Amino acid sequence: MQRISCAVVGASGYSGLELTRLLARHPSLRLAALLSDRWSGEKASDRLALKGPSADLPYRALAEAAQVDAEVVFLATPPEVSLELVPRLLARGEKVVDLSGAYRLKDPSLYPTWYGFEHRSPELLAEARYGLPELARAGLEGARLITNPGCYATATALALAPLVKSGLVSPEGVAVSAMSGVSGAGRKSSEEFSFCEIDEDLRAYRLARHQHVPEIEQTVRLYAGRGAPISFVPHLVPLRRGILATLTLRVVGGVDFAALERVYLDAYRDEPFVKVLPAGEVAVKDVVRTNLAHLGVALDARAGAAVAVAALDNLVKGAAGQAVQALNAAMGWAETEGLDLLGG
Amino acid sequence: MQRISCAVVGASGYSGLELTRLLARHPSLRLAALLSDRWSGEKASDRLALKGPSADLPYRALAEAAQVDAEVVFLATPPEVSLELVPRLLARGEKVVDLSGAYRLKDPSLYPTWYGFEHRSPELLAEARYGLPELARAGLEGARLITNPGCYATATALALAPLVKSGLVSPEGVAVSAMSGVSGAGRKSSEEFSFCEIDEDLRAYRLARHQHVPEIEQTVRLYAGRGAPISFVPHLVPLRRGILATLTLRVVGGVDFAALERVYLDAYRDEPFVKVLPAGEVAVKDVVRTNLAHLGVALDARAGAAVAVAALDNLVKGAAGQAVQALNAAMGWAETEGLDLLGG
Amino acid sequence: MQRISCAVVGASGYSGLELTRLLARHPSLRLAALLSDRWSGEKASDRLALKGPSADLPYRALAEAAQVDAEVVFLATPPEVSLELVPRLLARGEKVVDLSGAYRLKDPSLYPTWYGFEHRSPELLAEARYGLPELARAGLEGARLITNPGCYATATALALAPLVKSGLVSPEGVAVSAMSGVSGAGRKSSEEFSFCEIDEDLRAYRLARHQHVPEIEQTVRLYAGRGAPISFVPHLVPLRRGILATLTLRVVGGVDFAALERVYLDAYRDEPFVKVLPAGEVAVKDVVRTNLAHLGVALDARAGAAVAVAALDNLVKGAAGQAVQALNAAMGWAETEGLDLLGG
Amino acid sequence: MQRISCAVVGASGYSGLELTRLLARHPSLRLAALLSDRWSGEKASDRLALKGPSADLPYRALAEAAQVDAEVVFLATPPEVSLELVPRLLARGEKVVDLSGAYRLKDPSLYPTWYGFEHRSPELLAEARYGLPELARAGLEGARLITNPGCYATATALALAPLVKSGLVSPEGVAVSAMSGVSGAGRKSSEEFSFCEIDEDLRAYRLARHQHVPEIEQTVRLYAGRGAPISFVPHLVPLRRGILATLTLRVVGGVDFAALERVYLDAYRDEPFVKVLPAGEVAVKDVVRTNLAHLGVALDARAGAAVAVAALDNLVKGAAGQAVQALNAAMGWAETEGLDLLGG
Repeated sequence: MQRISCAVVGASGYSGLELTRLLARHPSLRLAALLSDRWSGEKASDRLALKGPSADLPYRALAEAAQVDAEVVFLATPPEVSLELVPRLLARGEKVVDLSGAYRLKDPSLYPTWYGFEHRSPELLAEARYGLPELARAGLEGARLITNPGCYATATALALAPLVKSGLVSPEGVAVSAMSGVSGAGRKSSEEFSFCEIDEDLRAYRLARHQHVPEIEQTVRLYAGRGAPISFVPHLVPLRRGILATLTLRVVGGVDFAALERVYLDAYRDEPFVKVLPAGEVAVKDVVRTNLAHLGVALDARAGAAVAVAALDNLVKGAAGQAVQALNAAMGWAETEGLDLLGG
Repeated sequence: MQRISCAVVGASGYSGLELTRLLARHPSLRLAALLSDRWSGEKASDRLALKGPSADLPYRALAEAAQVDAEVVFLATPPEVSLELVPRLLARGEKVVDLSGAYRLKDPSLYPTWYGFEHRSPELLAEARYGLPELARAGLEGARLITNPGCYATATALALAPLVKSGLVSPEGVAVSAMSGVSGAGRKSSEEFSFCEIDEDLRAYRLARHQHVPEIEQTVRLYAGRGAPISFVPHLVPLRRGILATLTLRVVGGVDFAALERVYLDAYRDEPFVKVLPAGEVAVKDVVRTNLAHLGVALDARAGAAVAVAALDNLVKGAAGQAVQALNAAMGWAETEGLDLLGG
Repeated sequence: MQRISCAVVGASGYSGLELTRLLARHPSLRLAALLSDRWSGEKASDRLALKGPSADLPYRALAEAAQVDAEVVFLATPPEVSLELVPRLLARGEKVVDLSGAYRLKDPSLYPTWYGFEHRSPELLAEARYGLPELARAGLEGARLITNPGCYATATALALAPLVKSGLVSPEGVAVSAMSGVSGAGRKSSEEFSFCEIDEDLRAYRLARHQHVPEIEQTVRLYAGRGAPISFVPHLVPLRRGILATLTLRVVGGVDFAALERVYLDAYRDEPFVKVLPAGEVAVKDVVRTNLAHLGVALDARAGAAVAVAALDNLVKGAAGQAVQALNAAMGWAETEGLDLLGG
Repeated sequence: MQRISCAVVGASGYSGLELTRLLARHPSLRLAALLSDRWSGEKASDRLALKGPSADLPYRALAEAAQVDAEVVFLATPPEVSLELVPRLLARGEKVVDLSGAYRLKDPSLYPTWYGFEHRSPELLAEARYGLPELARAGLEGARLITNPGCYATATALALAPLVKSGLVSPEGVAVSAMSGVSGAGRKSSEEFSFCEIDEDLRAYRLARHQHVPEIEQTVRLYAGRGAPISFVPHLVPLRRGILATLTLRVVGGVDFAALERVYLDAYRDEPFVKVLPAGEVAVKDVVRTNLAHLGVALDARAGAAVAVAALDNLVKGAAGQAVQALNAAMGWAETEGLDLLGG
């Protein structure tokens, strides 16, 4: 079979690097181009232990992105860059998987508040398919534009959506506390993310204003048929990669633990990348460098609450792996293609 | 002035070490005895960079605890040990500051559930004074038995109690997510707390069953005059010392940010060890190795929630420093005595 | 082709886990048994994200080791255990790859000093083949007993042996300073290796008495035809996995940098797992989770010294990956078999 | 007694912060000015938990450095800045303690090679007194210009100089491997020092060309009366603060361990800030946040080598604490003044 050609735009960021690794060994894809201003002039094997023809691929300047020749283009670029590139790439007949948030929200009026820009392509927002197969698989087949979920949004929505849909918890009063590895902030030359500032520190950031909030709410509403505003607090912790999200939810009277756990077991029974565990056994180290999400739920009967915990690798299930999984779904391939050797 | 003699029982644990450091330079106290089976036979200067007469103190066996001669005895021992020792020390006319949870809960019926033992001294539970001056100063003067608050309980109650008392947030539906440095687990030879298991991992533990839960609820109820069960999830993160607690609270309609912040500013205006900051600026690294608690609150208006963040050092304001502060209050000394040079 | 059956004894240690991962996907091997007292009763998929038939393998008690049925048995056991097991397994006609040091030294008289026991099988010491293909490939073909090199020994010998052989540096006066991730100490419930003790600390240990010293000296002497005692200082650093070894060597007069680098380029030209880089670019993070060793050398002309730097993953090229590579060589398979997807 | 006024130029760097902390509570000094472009407009208590009048000091722009009014000016500035400022401050009659390397080397011809600039004030190089009291106390009394030693240089020279002077080790063939916490690189917005790049990595850097090399050689030669070029390799490790230096030295025939240890015990018998320990017990965590240097030596008789290990805090004994100690010596105060409460 002829492999489908693909390109990575923004190949030197942490997500771009992870994508390059995955695509280089995907059995149905052929890596055709890597774009990065930072590493322009170098080749892939200078930066990654790749084998085969991908090793010799040169990094090309980002300015060539709109001319890149590939059947599928992965954008690991800031939202402002993706916003511009997507229409131009689609116009050339290419499929696009955008890892930024530029096309995630259906409602264009949310962009100024959460992303700081006016959205100029509302028709593409309508067309874009959300690349979270476990919760939105139906729309992916044949998609031309896949908008890849945010890392926090993936962890939170996987934990939240089935419970809300079950009716066992209220969509109101959802409190999410999430912690992310520093790679989630991207490759940055910032004092804020220097070793001396991060190590031995903990802090909350972007309280009540993280851009993944409307994305989570949209996903839950589409999947569960109902929803409400959530309160979401991300934290910076001394960790390279991985996310842990802890959700406190109000249970409807009379719910028992078995019913809560059953919701996850039923929702994710056939999912190759979701594993349900006791909530106290959900841990970042078991999912890091894999496309897995681990989920657990506990009943806090005294407080009338359910506590759900989700863990994933922000660069794999929260970014590059998810993008590959969604493309697999869009192309009609097995969703595990190119992802099954991770972490093994 | 004659210095008051004091002793530390359990001097080789992380809290015991911190206590030794503080007591050795407290201007009104004289360290008279250090008890630790682990270091029995060594002397203080083998383990700590102490100056003055404390440096030569030998570590004595724990078995001598009930015979120790000191006007004040600090117990940095497990609850089961403190349970036994407290009545014997009080009977000898000594003051006791107990850092364990053995005397924290007023209601003896809670002990089997939360601590796993029957309490045999309900009359001492009634007498014990809770050593959190900012919320319970009145009871401390002249106290014979001070029960020192838990580290999570201190962070959570400082953030929660004034807001509940203000009426601006509901006592119902409180969701607490807290993260602790590994020293909070004590000095342990456990694979679970080995570097290889902790580094690069995140996980929740003791969901809905941490023993600080009833302590927090009791403190809030006493201070605010009302309360309700809270949902509390502690997390293990790759950090040596420090606690960050994030609380999501339901606001009463129409509350604005200024009113929320005013609650903290008013409650802690004259407190030397509490500093109110924007919630996103509350960080462990600014309080570590000090007796400070940093607090902040944010309004999440969309979700009808307030988010409060508290940071402190689990070994100082969450243990040893707090114990000194509470004794200072009980003795009628300035609460900052012996604590003002920390972190300077 | 029929796959060769293999077993892992000591499957719950860090090296045993890594071996299990590698063997489960080796194309010419079939994992037939896993032995571990710690996890006895569990199955492989409880501990590892394995696919295929290996996932269902139960962990069996270590006591069954001498009866295990497999064509090749990997021993990830302490030297004292390997010492006993090896003759019994060989007697049953099985091939053995021993990851401990029990059969590494040719001279039995070294064991009491360096390993603390008398060696009872000098004839097996003579027979054992040292599993470092880059320096001792010739002996491996058809080997019945492979003794797998130590992690420090691999890093140091790869850097040292070709330079000594070249005659450009003196075998005398070799100073080695090496740093290892904590996983090198094995999975231990020890306070010494707890997060609180390791994080934010650095220290040297086993100065002048690490058991890898005579192993390095033996390897260099065999490869280079000459040698001398080396001075070796290992350090404990806050890192999970990886080794960096820095060697300071006396150069023979008139040597230039190009000649030094040429030694490495020539020695390792065709080696799939050794990469020569500028010494300042050799870094643990580029080799971790791979079977690669990165090497570099610099000339310190003022001091008449060459400085060589080597990095590898102590659990892969320093243990499990190396064991697979050596077995591949012994079986006549490509040395990269089962190792080529690592870190990709 | 009237306190002497002092100023810190470069107060926002890690050394500048540490200096500010120390000077604010020095009993004979009065902090009169803090200069930092980064924090210009803020005041000291915004950045540090200071008490007393220092808390209200404003940060002023660096451009005012040459006009600052203080009897003693501490320069925590890059060498290029110190080079310029020192003559101007001296000309105004102020004493200067320069923490950069701009005035450390007696021989001006070394500056182009090691610091990248021509030195324009050779007469001040001649006048400058090296602020390492343990090895160069005699020159400090009454000094007008104190040049504060480098962090690596302090650790290495304290370990090396007495051994070379003793004649028990050769000045030739000295191999130093040193590891530093990331704060040693200063407060930088650099990707190289980001948490994601540093955590879980180890690497050597500036092999054979670190600027502390000629400083160490000069110090040893002055103290011991002889010396030779050393080979020095610094390493970057995942640690915030602290230095560990390991030196491998050639012993003169017949030396025993007791003689080696005796050298340190004799050299540092009366030093309040140097402690001699078994080499395997020298550890960063015991000296961090103190002005202590811990030293140990071991004999590697097989290899004809001595191994010396030194640990200190790069920001205290390696920078700010040392600067205070040296000023104390210059002023005729007790060297421990203002330094005795550290780490207590």
